[in-house]
Amino acid sequence: MSVACFAADWGTTHLRLWALDAAEAVLWERDSDEGMGKLAPGGAFESALLRAIGGDMPEAGTVPVIICGMAGARQGWAEAPYATTPCETPSAADATRVATASERLRVFILPGVKQQSPADVMRGEETQIAGLLAREPEFDGVVCLPGTHTKWARISAREIVSFQTFMTGEMFDLLSRQSVLRHGLGEGWDADAFLTAVSDTMARPAGMSAHLFGIRSSGLLAGLAPAAARSRLSGLLIGAELAGARPYWLGQRVAILGADGIGDAYETALKAQGAEVERVDATHLTLDGLRAAWTALKETA
Amino acid sequence: MSVACFAADWGTTHLRLWALDAAEAVLWERDSDEGMGKLAPGGAFESALLRAIGGDMPEAGTVPVIICGMAGARQGWAEAPYATTPCETPSAADATRVATASERLRVFILPGVKQQSPADVMRGEETQIAGLLAREPEFDGVVCLPGTHTKWARISAREIVSFQTFMTGEMFDLLSRQSVLRHGLGEGWDADAFLTAVSDTMARPAGMSAHLFGIRSSGLLAGLAPAAARSRLSGLLIGAELAGARPYWLGQRVAILGADGIGDAYETALKAQGAEVERVDATHLTLDGLRAAWTALKETA
Repeated sequence: MSVACFAADWGTTHLRLWALDAAEAVLWERDSDEGMGKLAPGGAFESALLRAIGGDMPEAGTVPVIICGMAGARQGWAEAPYATTPCETPSAADATRVATASERLRVFILPGVKQQSPADVMRGEETQIAGLLAREPEFDGVVCLPGTHTKWARISAREIVSFQTFMTGEMFDLLSRQSVLRHGLGEGWDADAFLTAVSDTMARPAGMSAHLFGIRSSGLLAGLAPAAARSRLSGLLIGAELAGARPYWLGQRVAILGADGIGDAYETALKAQGAEVERVDATHLTLDGLRAAWTALKETA
Repeated sequence: MSVACFAADWGTTHLRLWALDAAEAVLWERDSDEGMGKLAPGGAFESALLRAIGGDMPEAGTVPVIICGMAGARQGWAEAPYATTPCETPSAADATRVATASERLRVFILPGVKQQSPADVMRGEETQIAGLLAREPEFDGVVCLPGTHTKWARISAREIVSFQTFMTGEMFDLLSRQSVLRHGLGEGWDADAFLTAVSDTMARPAGMSAHLFGIRSSGLLAGLAPAAARSRLSGLLIGAELAGARPYWLGQRVAILGADGIGDAYETALKAQGAEVERVDATHLTLDGLRAAWTALKETA
């Protein structure tokens, strides 16, 4: 089978590339660490894409390349202007066509989504949401996308109605690796310590910054175990986020798009609050969203 | 005049050393970057101290060395056990006598202070408080010591009654230098942006994590100026701290021990809440506290 389309999830630190055949089946998939952060704006992206494709270009013809993520940021390959909420998930019709040196590529970068007030932005997550809607067009509720910058979005009538971003994941990374707390943290998971911490900051988010230093003090004075310390750090941050995101999840159907450990943490924390939660395996959501954009492109061509 | 005592504020990143004459006047003062973080526990500290003294040892006799700070931590020169709240500020009688290779030095490390519940610790700040009480023995109220780990302490009848530590300063450093927010921050100060941010998180501390990412979004979408972005980051963190520390400052006399920009920020934020605030020049508070400990040592000797 020969390659009919390339689909790319191009973030800050990674490029994930899929080759699809004419029936939209995956021929191969590969990862590169040439994320946006390593590349100068413009042509460096085309070179990185060609390196990722390697010897696997089809022998003739032009191939569409559908891209989502930070490659569409101002510092990326080319700026793909944001769609504005409330809006449908961006499709190929909204994509930015990027000129390439190679005549063999037709590159399209999908827009991100912005919200005017409160100001907020996403690039990449909208394509995961598009993948969810491709599978389940009638989805009506809230999606939670845990990550470095966790997003909460209200979805109704195929539109992203509103969304909000929390820095929880990035704060966990910084505090666990580079702050004074790193001395007391270790591997492993303590579910009780996590849930206690979630309720501490949900009940009183103002206490977070003091509770954080309390992890250090409890390590020194009370022998807080390294796994419990790490779980408590995660719980304090997620509890404060859930207090802030309450208007999103309270009384709503919540789908967590994430199959990994961080998705488990959000699920446990939300269920402890009595929320109705479902998990969606996010592994192929971005691919499904990119595939849906390619389908739309073929229909408009 | 010859050196009668060395006084040292030995923190994680710096050693500050003063030489005092018999009348407790400062003969000289020097800074070294050989903080606790750079030294192996034990004898490396004696070598670093002798390097800082250089050729300025008195010609004969033994010299007392009074030390406060992280040199007394478990990973320091020698562990100086904590005093426990409520307690007077530690004096020379509570100090840990450390054996040295040199017979010319008599080294005393002052204890830090711990609180059992909620668990909390300080090492160094208690000596600043001792300096304040040396100047103003009748002080009754709350002290705020802004820094990497800001401390709030209730002082009454010459005792540290209780205290609480907030990670505000360290979070500001990490977020401003290493998070996604670093792209939008610049030098300068915007007092309005600071105060608006303080009231945003004081009114609703649960919103902090989303407001933090909002700095990035507002930079991208609304052209938030770099100085305003930096001031807003500071205000969001300090506002959340003030919400958490409210039981400390509400209706109390608050002394901010800090003459620099961060002290200004706390003063402005607290005054906007109607708090009664005074500023204390902290430059020599630690020295005054160490001097008081030496005075006590001479009296007991």
